[in-house]
Amino acid sequence: MSSTWKNNIALSIFGQSHGAAIGMTLDGIPAGEAIDLDELRAFMLRRAPGNFPWATPRKEADEPELIAGLVNGKTCGSPITAIIRNTNTRPHDYGHIQFVPRPAHADFTAFVKHGGFADLSGGGHFSGRLTAALCIAGGICLQILKRRGIFIGGHVASVGAVNDDLFSPVGVGEELFAELRAMDFPVINPEAGARMVSEIEQAKQDGDSVGGVVECAAVGLPAGLGSPMFGGMENIIAQLVFAIPAVKGIEFGAGFSAATKRGSENNDSFTVTSGKVTTETNNHGGILGGITSGMAIIFRAAVKPTPSIEKAQQSVDLVANTPVQLEIKGRHDPCIVPRAVPCFEAAMAVAVMDSIQSK
Amino acid sequence: MSSTWKNNIALSIFGQSHGAAIGMTLDGIPAGEAIDLDELRAFMLRRAPGNFPWATPRKEADEPELIAGLVNGKTCGSPITAIIRNTNTRPHDYGHIQFVPRPAHADFTAFVKHGGFADLSGGGHFSGRLTAALCIAGGICLQILKRRGIFIGGHVASVGAVNDDLFSPVGVGEELFAELRAMDFPVINPEAGARMVSEIEQAKQDGDSVGGVVECAAVGLPAGLGSPMFGGMENIIAQLVFAIPAVKGIEFGAGFSAATKRGSENNDSFTVTSGKVTTETNNHGGILGGITSGMAIIFRAAVKPTPSIEKAQQSVDLVANTPVQLEIKGRHDPCIVPRAVPCFEAAMAVAVMDSIQSK
Amino acid sequence: MSSTWKNNIALSIFGQSHGAAIGMTLDGIPAGEAIDLDELRAFMLRRAPGNFPWATPRKEADEPELIAGLVNGKTCGSPITAIIRNTNTRPHDYGHIQFVPRPAHADFTAFVKHGGFADLSGGGHFSGRLTAALCIAGGICLQILKRRGIFIGGHVASVGAVNDDLFSPVGVGEELFAELRAMDFPVINPEAGARMVSEIEQAKQDGDSVGGVVECAAVGLPAGLGSPMFGGMENIIAQLVFAIPAVKGIEFGAGFSAATKRGSENNDSFTVTSGKVTTETNNHGGILGGITSGMAIIFRAAVKPTPSIEKAQQSVDLVANTPVQLEIKGRHDPCIVPRAVPCFEAAMAVAVMDSIQSK
Amino acid sequence: MSSTWKNNIALSIFGQSHGAAIGMTLDGIPAGEAIDLDELRAFMLRRAPGNFPWATPRKEADEPELIAGLVNGKTCGSPITAIIRNTNTRPHDYGHIQFVPRPAHADFTAFVKHGGFADLSGGGHFSGRLTAALCIAGGICLQILKRRGIFIGGHVASVGAVNDDLFSPVGVGEELFAELRAMDFPVINPEAGARMVSEIEQAKQDGDSVGGVVECAAVGLPAGLGSPMFGGMENIIAQLVFAIPAVKGIEFGAGFSAATKRGSENNDSFTVTSGKVTTETNNHGGILGGITSGMAIIFRAAVKPTPSIEKAQQSVDLVANTPVQLEIKGRHDPCIVPRAVPCFEAAMAVAVMDSIQSK
Repeated sequence: MSSTWKNNIALSIFGQSHGAAIGMTLDGIPAGEAIDLDELRAFMLRRAPGNFPWATPRKEADEPELIAGLVNGKTCGSPITAIIRNTNTRPHDYGHIQFVPRPAHADFTAFVKHGGFADLSGGGHFSGRLTAALCIAGGICLQILKRRGIFIGGHVASVGAVNDDLFSPVGVGEELFAELRAMDFPVINPEAGARMVSEIEQAKQDGDSVGGVVECAAVGLPAGLGSPMFGGMENIIAQLVFAIPAVKGIEFGAGFSAATKRGSENNDSFTVTSGKVTTETNNHGGILGGITSGMAIIFRAAVKPTPSIEKAQQSVDLVANTPVQLEIKGRHDPCIVPRAVPCFEAAMAVAVMDSIQSK
Repeated sequence: MSSTWKNNIALSIFGQSHGAAIGMTLDGIPAGEAIDLDELRAFMLRRAPGNFPWATPRKEADEPELIAGLVNGKTCGSPITAIIRNTNTRPHDYGHIQFVPRPAHADFTAFVKHGGFADLSGGGHFSGRLTAALCIAGGICLQILKRRGIFIGGHVASVGAVNDDLFSPVGVGEELFAELRAMDFPVINPEAGARMVSEIEQAKQDGDSVGGVVECAAVGLPAGLGSPMFGGMENIIAQLVFAIPAVKGIEFGAGFSAATKRGSENNDSFTVTSGKVTTETNNHGGILGGITSGMAIIFRAAVKPTPSIEKAQQSVDLVANTPVQLEIKGRHDPCIVPRAVPCFEAAMAVAVMDSIQSK
Repeated sequence: MSSTWKNNIALSIFGQSHGAAIGMTLDGIPAGEAIDLDELRAFMLRRAPGNFPWATPRKEADEPELIAGLVNGKTCGSPITAIIRNTNTRPHDYGHIQFVPRPAHADFTAFVKHGGFADLSGGGHFSGRLTAALCIAGGICLQILKRRGIFIGGHVASVGAVNDDLFSPVGVGEELFAELRAMDFPVINPEAGARMVSEIEQAKQDGDSVGGVVECAAVGLPAGLGSPMFGGMENIIAQLVFAIPAVKGIEFGAGFSAATKRGSENNDSFTVTSGKVTTETNNHGGILGGITSGMAIIFRAAVKPTPSIEKAQQSVDLVANTPVQLEIKGRHDPCIVPRAVPCFEAAMAVAVMDSIQSK
Repeated sequence: MSSTWKNNIALSIFGQSHGAAIGMTLDGIPAGEAIDLDELRAFMLRRAPGNFPWATPRKEADEPELIAGLVNGKTCGSPITAIIRNTNTRPHDYGHIQFVPRPAHADFTAFVKHGGFADLSGGGHFSGRLTAALCIAGGICLQILKRRGIFIGGHVASVGAVNDDLFSPVGVGEELFAELRAMDFPVINPEAGARMVSEIEQAKQDGDSVGGVVECAAVGLPAGLGSPMFGGMENIIAQLVFAIPAVKGIEFGAGFSAATKRGSENNDSFTVTSGKVTTETNNHGGILGGITSGMAIIFRAAVKPTPSIEKAQQSVDLVANTPVQLEIKGRHDPCIVPRAVPCFEAAMAVAVMDSIQSK
């Protein structure tokens, strides 16, 4: 039981990939916040498959219907619930693999946990499709945070071996985020972006998939948000980010590269800028002792290659307990990374919203 | 507020580095579990400074007193509370820096959050010393898990640029863990270990510090533990691991390297071994969809270099709001990584204990 | 923020009286449980207004649509979400009182908390209508509990000054519950029931309302469920029961009458019946130290008279800050007590389901 | 698992009656709050047995040692932990009844839940002694609330059949609370108090015990605290109050008597007093829809007669599964009610503190 998350705010995500609907309830949002549905739709469109070489041909309207929590377009202080009807379900695509788990998918573990009752169609509740619900929650939070001067943005930091530039402590901010939001394939360095797309197209041609890294930042946060120990900003962000399927790692600021450094290199000197205490560098990623320093929060998350590939794979028939060769014919993204960018922004937005709703 | 963690079990950590005592309450542990205090002490000794070049000369007995939850050496089903008296406190070591935050420490953010009332002596509640309390909780869980056939171990995976070998899906297990536990500087490859120690000694001579990576594994878990979405094994482990100060990243299985791979490389084929479904490789780190697969859970965590260094650093007087040069003379570890290994084992143990206490 | 409840299972209730829909998400229910929708509908019908003198003429189909968590009529282990569309909304009924709070309603406190953004139409999220969502959750739990030999039932224990007989330790059980379920006005003593109905009719004629008490019991629970201190059965049941609007008190077993007794009268002697330890009386209401004793759990809850009455009342215009005479013309129950019975059964069912999902 | 309570603040209570120590950790209290230990001691003394006919002769110093969370007498924002060493333990008093549960005690249910490993000495973790830990938490909160103009007080509302006057909406306030605090046997009507003491002395002479009711109020709260549904003030107070052993019922405002009333009697008219909206009566007990109205919060809790009585009782030998006659010779209160008054004030204080720590 854990599709219900409760800290200073609460988020409940429900639905299965090929069930009647997916959706979410977001509880604890203050009253009086205008929610612009067009802006929410635009945000969610960045997660939608689109007509891109890297995306699944499965098309879903992904139109969220807000059924609770708003009055005349503004939050009323009650839980906000939105649902998305699943219109383009094809349960039979997956019927034949019901007891043959796809490698690197949750099919096997869901089957062990829930037995034959697990909904394995298209990944059921474990499907990446559920991130649409996360994006509703995050898209709502983003609009509220924006009015408080807090902006969040992300980009594809790498695909396979190709790396984009990283956010710098200086350049990161809403201007750059707006540029990235406007791009189909959001990267800081367009040349790297072009090579990433090639990498993805190549993987697709090979009936294969490829992984990557997303970098996400939040700017405009006051210092002093968050808590020590288990409720720190890193803890909460990490807990939310690992709810996005395919994430296998997260790092903040200098992250794993901090582990290779000396203290004298990694420590961010304090300085006074326009009367405000800041740091000259941002190896700490905006968080010290679980609490915001006022610098940009920056994390990078590792996204494994899409498990569903056309290439033949070795699996097991869970009923017969015998080896089986598996070929997956469904509709899949050769690289989920570009579509995942708004999902990470959403996770960050929920975490930051949570921190400002604490006293 | 977040030094109280509550999921299927609950863990509350309290105390400040130079206060009267530190300690923890662990709630939700089943009755009838024998807790061997000598074994607990031995576990905690691995975290103690010892007489090693890499450790602070501050010596604390670190003797946990179990004041609640046991009857005749066995758990009685009530909360387990243990405290450690702080005997060797030197509040004056830190007096002069009370309003001059140490770079990369929580001094600044604690001051912003709690104002002049924050306990900044030795890091207060944010001190690495609090991991002793985590180790009590973890040490207790380890003993219980062992009786259920679940074993946890860790090693120094890297210091600076020097890398140890990593856990392999095949060799990882209690035998290797026992060897590692017996080593002052736990590594798989002793030659790499020797070079790491040199790296640390060099940093120390330079009045500097150095970071590293710890790798931690759990074996013997049944498949099917954990949950999807926010309460998955990765989410819970990450939430607990980021409670260890200095952690800036965590990755599971192939982790960030998965992001550079093709699906066909990264997907772990299913196979049947002695009638049991397993995977041939373990890029998934024992977790799929937040749920255990029965393979070893493996994570690596990035530990930044100890922030406290003797070298002069740039900081700010938070009262005068002016730049100040800071030199720290206290007692510090040039590299916290080897002493941190049991802390990560403890975090893993608490997370795994939590998962088996769920229905 | 608290329409999201999370313990061993989680329940999130959303929606406003005159919004698009109300509903609930129930998380943590085991997979493989058949949910009979007809049985659920029948359960909810007991809460529906019907054509009775004691009920509001507002008619809602109250047809729950299960949009997540079921596959082929069985739970799949993922969160269960159901919604009910609000079809018969009349926002204008309430428009004129938007800033004139109805005495004993949450209008005033909702306005203070959420300001002019509060949804006050028909009580918004505070409306008794939201108990339909609780009944979906409870109705699902009841079906699961039944298969484990646990049965829950309730009756109108009093209306105004008229009292029904109370559950006795001997007679209480599924047979009696089934009889009560079949009655429009569920009482043990039909003669008392008839007098209660008269009491309600009289109140209605007077443009007034009347309160009452509901008694609810659960039988078939094993001894040993629940916890001491904050998570005991009484604590959890009370926390859930006070979510039902109009409840002003709850008591277990002998309850407030225990306060008038001697220990020698109130203590329930232990005895052995067919090899099983039971108590001869049940003043403890099936709970000792927060943990089930195996005897029937019995509670009574005080339901205040419906606040909305036709009689003129004194209130205040919150904008002008001046006294205003208020007359309410909408559709209201002169006595909510009979319709509330299934709501209490639902709260009990969720609490008991929660306790058996703990390890 | 539930001796750890977590909402906007967290409270963890640990220890067993005859273990090494009992204590509590209170997390989420703002920094900078002065805690006067003498005042805390004075508060706890009201719970101490004293030399009164109604109290157990067991004497405990009940001296709380604050081992974490304070610096120079002020909170530092970190968890506050206090312990009380158990000095006057007599485990052998209870040895002979280890497997013969005392009627109306938690002995039986603790044994069923934890098996032979349960600590049954003196009630173990279920003992009324643990309320001393609750009083530490509450005593700390009371001091903080006082500085915010919020005052809490209580009195013995009844013992057996003898009733004290109840708090009136008009007279209730700090002046009356101060008078009550100064009394060994806190009642509004001293004549009733004298008769209650006789009632208790009579019960004692008879080797019996007697129950009663405590009434508790909080004044000075702003309107708008709390939440609808599961996190309302009533829900939270009830959840905390049922953590006090022997409580079998709770009611707010008019409580169970509201169930006998007409709406026109029970509804509290709104009025404007010195420019502020208030109600003329307080049948709602200061809470509407789970949210404070600004009027006094008033609850009454039913306390059952002390289960431990000298009179012979019928029980069962849980090992032999045979009936046994039980005579309890230990040290017991013939009436716990007067000593329980500060415990209820403590529970109220924690609940109110929790509500003001929410945003």
